[in-house]
Amino acid sequence: MNLIEQVKKTKEASLVLGTSTIEVRNKILENIAKSIEENKDKIIEENKKDIQQAEKDNLSKPLLKRLELNDKKINEIVEMVNGVINLEDPVNKILEVMDLDDNLELTKVTVPIGLIVAIFESRPDAAVQIASLCIKSGNGVILKPGKESINTCKLLVELIKESLEKENLSKDNVQLIETREEVNEILKLHEYIDLLIPRGSNKFVKFIQENSKIPVLGHADGICHVYVDKNADLDKAIKICFDAKCQYAAVCNAMETLLVHKDIAAKFLPLIKEKYDEAEVELKGDEETRKIIDIKEAIEQDWKTEYNDLILSIKIVDDAEEAINHINKYGSKHTDAIVTENKETANVFLSKVDSSSVLHNCSTRFADGFRYGKGAEVGISTSKIHGRGPLGLEGLVIYKYILKGDGDIVEDYSSGKKIFKHIKK
Amino acid sequence: MNLIEQVKKTKEASLVLGTSTIEVRNKILENIAKSIEENKDKIIEENKKDIQQAEKDNLSKPLLKRLELNDKKINEIVEMVNGVINLEDPVNKILEVMDLDDNLELTKVTVPIGLIVAIFESRPDAAVQIASLCIKSGNGVILKPGKESINTCKLLVELIKESLEKENLSKDNVQLIETREEVNEILKLHEYIDLLIPRGSNKFVKFIQENSKIPVLGHADGICHVYVDKNADLDKAIKICFDAKCQYAAVCNAMETLLVHKDIAAKFLPLIKEKYDEAEVELKGDEETRKIIDIKEAIEQDWKTEYNDLILSIKIVDDAEEAINHINKYGSKHTDAIVTENKETANVFLSKVDSSSVLHNCSTRFADGFRYGKGAEVGISTSKIHGRGPLGLEGLVIYKYILKGDGDIVEDYSSGKKIFKHIKK
Repeated sequence: MNLIEQVKKTKEASLVLGTSTIEVRNKILENIAKSIEENKDKIIEENKKDIQQAEKDNLSKPLLKRLELNDKKINEIVEMVNGVINLEDPVNKILEVMDLDDNLELTKVTVPIGLIVAIFESRPDAAVQIASLCIKSGNGVILKPGKESINTCKLLVELIKESLEKENLSKDNVQLIETREEVNEILKLHEYIDLLIPRGSNKFVKFIQENSKIPVLGHADGICHVYVDKNADLDKAIKICFDAKCQYAAVCNAMETLLVHKDIAAKFLPLIKEKYDEAEVELKGDEETRKIIDIKEAIEQDWKTEYNDLILSIKIVDDAEEAINHINKYGSKHTDAIVTENKETANVFLSKVDSSSVLHNCSTRFADGFRYGKGAEVGISTSKIHGRGPLGLEGLVIYKYILKGDGDIVEDYSSGKKIFKHIKK
Repeated sequence: MNLIEQVKKTKEASLVLGTSTIEVRNKILENIAKSIEENKDKIIEENKKDIQQAEKDNLSKPLLKRLELNDKKINEIVEMVNGVINLEDPVNKILEVMDLDDNLELTKVTVPIGLIVAIFESRPDAAVQIASLCIKSGNGVILKPGKESINTCKLLVELIKESLEKENLSKDNVQLIETREEVNEILKLHEYIDLLIPRGSNKFVKFIQENSKIPVLGHADGICHVYVDKNADLDKAIKICFDAKCQYAAVCNAMETLLVHKDIAAKFLPLIKEKYDEAEVELKGDEETRKIIDIKEAIEQDWKTEYNDLILSIKIVDDAEEAINHINKYGSKHTDAIVTENKETANVFLSKVDSSSVLHNCSTRFADGFRYGKGAEVGISTSKIHGRGPLGLEGLVIYKYILKGDGDIVEDYSSGKKIFKHIKK
């Protein structure tokens, strides 16, 4: 089967899955959880093949760790699928009802987006997670896992396909592609594919964004800021700045640049430096900062850099306005925080900073689907179209309008014979 | 000023407009309405220059008519601006509030999208309409009108700029570009521009879609269907099919293909043909249709064609399932209707047809922002991302998350010291 036929089949299958009941979709997920549990040994066996190959290819330790499945990890996958079962049905939600006139009722209702392609790195659990979220929301999905996990993912997708067929739904709803060439071809199929979800390095996401007309859910950069205002409570500021940088440095919602009001810099900077030194954070500062604490120099490029590591750039600003302008200029519209006891200053910051999440007196690390109470995170979007910020299942649905009449025609309204009532219900 | 500087300035200005109060934004619109009224003569004078040039260039009669402004048309523009003033503020709407924990409140609130570029044809009233909608929703906008209306639009934009400045907002919020070269350059600026709104021919919209990475709000094709089921009330079917084709044939929500159930074709087709003959509709049919009524032959290409004219293709189908499959295969995901008294069949159709508007027992012509009670229509989208179907001001906003805490850090939750409450309010 060639790729375009495969894509068409998944699209066709998704139209059927998309109109199935939530009971059926949850039943499929139950089948998946059960069959992963039952096939634990087989999965670990296939995973060992991947591990052996990866060791031959000298994959780095952290990558090997992500790739490896053991008993505990498989239990976690099963638990995750059960978690998705417990989430509310995102489809068939009535968003609005309006009587355009007597017996002419307009309903706005959520429906699946359609056909989704997810391209991700070597974690095989991602394949199950994304497929589960897509099945729950009635979407077809084509998965392209990292080549390192291909044996494991092949088996997992096989189990998912069987789980679909047990409920009389097409196995084509979930497909696997394996090669980079297929990805390049996929990127051109904007006529059939509704949404791309790339997970991976900034460079990789940017490549996808630059090379396809298909809408992309995700973000390339996460250049997040904390601004410590002159009216900050310094204890809170220290706690927040430490958490935002050090709690987990390799993630998109970690702080990359610290902005400090000039009036409190002399007091605050030595205190936070002490904390950062304990965690061995490498600090870089602008000229004013370096008059107060002895650290390396930050250059223009630093303000545009997502370190994804225990490195932080620091800049002293004259006021909140300068902090806001710096963030809107150099940030990535992801997540930015202010620390201040002045509510007015906080509100100006929250309103003027043009980012998907803006925070007052808390750590940037909170910007995450689980912490935002979404149950499952599909991704964090810095796009300003469709979904923005951490996205749960709501990121995998759109809506349609349903209008029910009784022989109604527009001519009656154009001619003035009838008049619209437009009553919201 | 070069184009990229101009774009940056509009973006900067939009961040200020976007955080202004609704009172200020409405005051700007009042200024616009007033100044258009006061400058009626000047506007007509500039419009005459455009008309003279257009006559020299042998512009077609309908285009000339769209281009021309007179006293009555200017009054309509003023009324339209007043209509936008009366619409609800689309910005600062609170969509969700959730306590992640005590004193850790997450709010999801609507905000402007940012910088919008609108490219449209020769109607100068479109410039005022789009600028008004963008100001109301706090967005910056760059307008590219058809070159035929350039003198009129230059003056109108001048009046809009003055109206902004009177409220101490930057005139850069609304800008005009004049050349096709600038459009080509604009299409590359996905780093700065958040949304494109092209209005014009299918070919033009498709060109924009194919040549930019900026998200496009709109639709290229409007291939709409009516399916007359075996359980249709024939009186309703005739009324609806006539309205859907003839009420206004040159628009996107007019019917292009009529699908008829085989069991009622022999009865229905001669009746509807009589009506269409009165309106001089050119009919084309498949083989089965032509056994019943004597019309031209429809070929494969007809099912994919938006005639935008008094032409209709007709096909006989075995059942609702075949109709649904035909629509999902050949349609443009715009608007499709079923005529039937059988509610079960209707619900299957409404659920399985993958279009932005699906209708039961009413004309496709209803799919329109005004008729859907939106007050103003920004466009009709066949995209499945962001907005779908007729879009009012809600198509020009997105949301941001605001999280307010009191020194909260993620480490407390990761370590298990604290547990999220996630209470929806």
